[in-house]
Amino acid sequence: MQAENIKEAIQWRKLIDVLLDSNQFADLVLKGGYIINTVTREIYEADVAIKGEYILMVGDVSELIGSKTKVEDVKGRFISPGFIDSHMHFESSMLTCTEFSRLSIPTGTTTLIGDPHEIGNVLGVQGMQEMIKEVKTLPNQVYFTVPCAVPDAPGLETPGFDVNSKHMEELLNDPYVQGIGEIQSFSNIHPVYENAPELIDDLVAAVSYAKSIGKTVEGNAPGLFSKELAAHIISGGTHVSCHETTTKEEMVEKLRYGVSVFMREGSSQRNMAACIRAITEEGLDSRRAMLVSDDMVPEDLLKDGHMNDIVKRTIAQGVDPVEAIQMATINPATHFGFKDVGILAPGKRANIAVISDLNEMTIDQVYLNGSLAAEKGELTINLGSYTYPESVKKSVKRDPVNVENLHIQAKGSRAKVRAVVAIPDQNLTGAKEFKMNVSNGVVQPCLQQDVLPLVVVERHGRTGNIGKAFLNGFKLQSGAIAESVAHDTHNIIVTGTNYEDMVTAVNRVISMDGGIAMIKDGKVVGDLPLRVGGLITDELNGREVSEKIAELSRLAESELGCGIHVPFMHLSFWSLVTSPEWKITDMGLIDADKFEILAPVVE
Amino acid sequence: MQAENIKEAIQWRKLIDVLLDSNQFADLVLKGGYIINTVTREIYEADVAIKGEYILMVGDVSELIGSKTKVEDVKGRFISPGFIDSHMHFESSMLTCTEFSRLSIPTGTTTLIGDPHEIGNVLGVQGMQEMIKEVKTLPNQVYFTVPCAVPDAPGLETPGFDVNSKHMEELLNDPYVQGIGEIQSFSNIHPVYENAPELIDDLVAAVSYAKSIGKTVEGNAPGLFSKELAAHIISGGTHVSCHETTTKEEMVEKLRYGVSVFMREGSSQRNMAACIRAITEEGLDSRRAMLVSDDMVPEDLLKDGHMNDIVKRTIAQGVDPVEAIQMATINPATHFGFKDVGILAPGKRANIAVISDLNEMTIDQVYLNGSLAAEKGELTINLGSYTYPESVKKSVKRDPVNVENLHIQAKGSRAKVRAVVAIPDQNLTGAKEFKMNVSNGVVQPCLQQDVLPLVVVERHGRTGNIGKAFLNGFKLQSGAIAESVAHDTHNIIVTGTNYEDMVTAVNRVISMDGGIAMIKDGKVVGDLPLRVGGLITDELNGREVSEKIAELSRLAESELGCGIHVPFMHLSFWSLVTSPEWKITDMGLIDADKFEILAPVVE
Repeated sequence: MQAENIKEAIQWRKLIDVLLDSNQFADLVLKGGYIINTVTREIYEADVAIKGEYILMVGDVSELIGSKTKVEDVKGRFISPGFIDSHMHFESSMLTCTEFSRLSIPTGTTTLIGDPHEIGNVLGVQGMQEMIKEVKTLPNQVYFTVPCAVPDAPGLETPGFDVNSKHMEELLNDPYVQGIGEIQSFSNIHPVYENAPELIDDLVAAVSYAKSIGKTVEGNAPGLFSKELAAHIISGGTHVSCHETTTKEEMVEKLRYGVSVFMREGSSQRNMAACIRAITEEGLDSRRAMLVSDDMVPEDLLKDGHMNDIVKRTIAQGVDPVEAIQMATINPATHFGFKDVGILAPGKRANIAVISDLNEMTIDQVYLNGSLAAEKGELTINLGSYTYPESVKKSVKRDPVNVENLHIQAKGSRAKVRAVVAIPDQNLTGAKEFKMNVSNGVVQPCLQQDVLPLVVVERHGRTGNIGKAFLNGFKLQSGAIAESVAHDTHNIIVTGTNYEDMVTAVNRVISMDGGIAMIKDGKVVGDLPLRVGGLITDELNGREVSEKIAELSRLAESELGCGIHVPFMHLSFWSLVTSPEWKITDMGLIDADKFEILAPVVE
Repeated sequence: MQAENIKEAIQWRKLIDVLLDSNQFADLVLKGGYIINTVTREIYEADVAIKGEYILMVGDVSELIGSKTKVEDVKGRFISPGFIDSHMHFESSMLTCTEFSRLSIPTGTTTLIGDPHEIGNVLGVQGMQEMIKEVKTLPNQVYFTVPCAVPDAPGLETPGFDVNSKHMEELLNDPYVQGIGEIQSFSNIHPVYENAPELIDDLVAAVSYAKSIGKTVEGNAPGLFSKELAAHIISGGTHVSCHETTTKEEMVEKLRYGVSVFMREGSSQRNMAACIRAITEEGLDSRRAMLVSDDMVPEDLLKDGHMNDIVKRTIAQGVDPVEAIQMATINPATHFGFKDVGILAPGKRANIAVISDLNEMTIDQVYLNGSLAAEKGELTINLGSYTYPESVKKSVKRDPVNVENLHIQAKGSRAKVRAVVAIPDQNLTGAKEFKMNVSNGVVQPCLQQDVLPLVVVERHGRTGNIGKAFLNGFKLQSGAIAESVAHDTHNIIVTGTNYEDMVTAVNRVISMDGGIAMIKDGKVVGDLPLRVGGLITDELNGREVSEKIAELSRLAESELGCGIHVPFMHLSFWSLVTSPEWKITDMGLIDADKFEILAPVVE
């Protein structure tokens, strides 16, 4: 038996003593509030008695109040289990888990299920284990669902390390690892089935192992229906989630198929309003509907909140407040098999959100493990900053590039080229061909057509590849932007109005050990070092990162004339080969539907 | 990784091939029916495609129908996941698991969670393992929740073997063992807390171990509210069930506390109608409401059915049919963490009930693992009978008794005695004193006051104890009844209008290796050998046992003049010391509330 279980058993025994020995009392009582009961879907007046880290009971707890019991008056307020974010990537915030938690705890989120597949692409098992090490120092409840396939598309992209079924034993047996994360290696059903069936075999092996040790598996089934949806569900061991559901019809189909639908409602992609119509219009049982953020930027966490804001938006769609709260408490707790959270009941972890306005989801107090952790939006506990070891900060493993390395060559004076077409606010892209001028054998950027070189430089020290294509629709007027955040393998992606600034931008990212760099006329317009895996900073807190990103966004517009908002976020997704149509990786221009590498210039 | 998982993984891969390879097809399609969707709580027209033992998909499956696909027309009928009985004792039916299954499969029950604590009391770990061995031969899905405390009340009764936390590793690691069964050792909260706190320590140790290996724990909280309910829940690891909930108020309280309420609706005790009012009148979310049988006699299985009949009765209480079916499918599947049953969806086990009349719950067909197993109430598969080894058939380990052994002695000519008071159709009893005649130092049975000797003879070869008291309210006119079914330690219990017939009855039970015997004027009026642990017969099938019990009941009335119906069932519960008030064990008359042994004669 693990030490963790023995510790828990001793706690149970102590709680029983307090309940039955009339000389023992609660440490803390929250008195006079309205309980949000997430199992019965009720609200009623009741008090909460807490001993140590656990809830003793909920109801009339007067016999549990002794002379030393702290009685907290919560009259008129609503007492909810702390919220669970069932699917999120810390890396999207560019913050350490600690700094993310510093922002999310005061909003009532007490459980986070992180998916470290970004750091996993850069640093492999060891990188993910470093992140797991960090969360073990945190007072909130954080678990990980880990990738079982890195890269997502073998042969089409180069990550820092490979992860596959062979690594599952090492990863999944950590008690902080909940299971396997989004299985996007089999989202693109027919292309994978026809071109890379070995991916399915390896996936099934990983899933089977996970299941054998009682771990869960999360799915990823954008746009899948019918047979393809069935195949995806089965590949994940027959009970999976999907956080890529975007329409009411998909929501209905997936719930009918038993999928736990994680309605995504983060900083960039918001699908709840469409999905929730399966509940509000069709009256479907909502037990397998959940709310997740997926990707959050610090600015939104600071300005709007986290799961409380997502619950608020769900209520605004006409969902009963308690039902909406179920989607962020008991529904995910049930999905993951968490026995200790999701409901305020005897023996559960005392992770509690005190809500002063239910429709606005204004969080008044947050309790973590029985102690006040935040009040009126401010953390009341000491959360030291976390510094990662240097071993994860040397993830950019390549020498500087020179301009010839980036040049896209063609013969003659005009060339027909292939361009990834940017679609604002979407991961997916279009595909289009353009005629471009060629000068001295090099295709020239064309501001008139808004077609620029788009290059990915391998930075993991494995191949030295440089993949080349063109980009249409970025609306850049001058300079270049490069970054080491480029989904999912996180090589250095760069675009610009001239090759010289592109080179300077890439080399700036290399010299910073990763991050974002904007260059104009050979000078740094702005930058943000992200030394942890080239993805995260452990030198700035949430507010500082938020301000920095806002500043970089302003500079992108004012100095580089970029007409697309949050250009770094958009740029980072144009290398994601698991969604259509054309994408760019270190191996070149990728036709994501056909699993083919295309030349940038049409011969 | 266990062989079971590898086998499953290979199956998944095959299903994916059938779904995606246009040259592969389903084995079986159920066409034209109405799907009962237990996740969305809907009914809609859809077909079910099956490959091997699993469901491929549900919906428009026309592309999966090939020339060799068997298409079964189920037009106009309702297609439901097979039913789950979450809490039942095979021993109550006196049938082997095989014979019970023979009766329950045609009624649509495809999953049984047995609790073998009766055989566990007689034969310990080995006895339970023999039962587990039997169910491994069955085509339906059978798991066990095993006791972690035998006897329930140490020091007050003698079982054949003790079971405690030390045995959990050996028992719980069997894949057919789902977890720990009803923890009735801590149902009687204050008496146990005050008199036997070591029971709580051992319980918590067992529960903690179960939890550490991912197993579940079932509770047993009759009449508990507030602090006592909280203590019971915590002792079970904070998420337990209760199948002893009998009122609406208890149902509300337990659901609010997060308990999975197993509404009992078996042969002897029926609590659903009261409990369901928490749903129908108060509108509580029913996700943690489930239906169970607990104890079923073969007659009822034959006459009325099993879970289908319980669902029918639930519908009759005003519950929506799909919601009622959820209580016997997805709700228990979720409670136990079963991923493979409870909903008709891709990759799930093809255990299916085809229902021709939804309100009557008439079961037309039953599929087990993708194959037709029953049609119109008749089994269509071959289910061989199961014979237990002789090692479990020699469980009555004592020499015959003589009349002096049973005599209850007193001085003088009159004595004040203590009598267990029978309450028809209840496990619990009353307590009353009577004045009785004494002849030659022996208290005489008194038909006028309806007070008879009630004796329990230890039969496990451990102590030879003979516990003595009196019984009021059995309404016996002549003869004696003895049986080796006597909850929970299953010593031989006997009562009668004269000591001689009582001795003969006990000795008959001993000579049969266990069972039921009725004696009048020294002759056998009727008997039923139950050689497997003194509880079960492997020589008769369900119909034969049903007929035998009916015959014995008739004879009890006609020959012995017994005025209480099913006297054997009643008699067997008067030794159950976990419910109030006075009970009898081999150690004597027990005050169940005070944990005290009382003399039969008041000094």
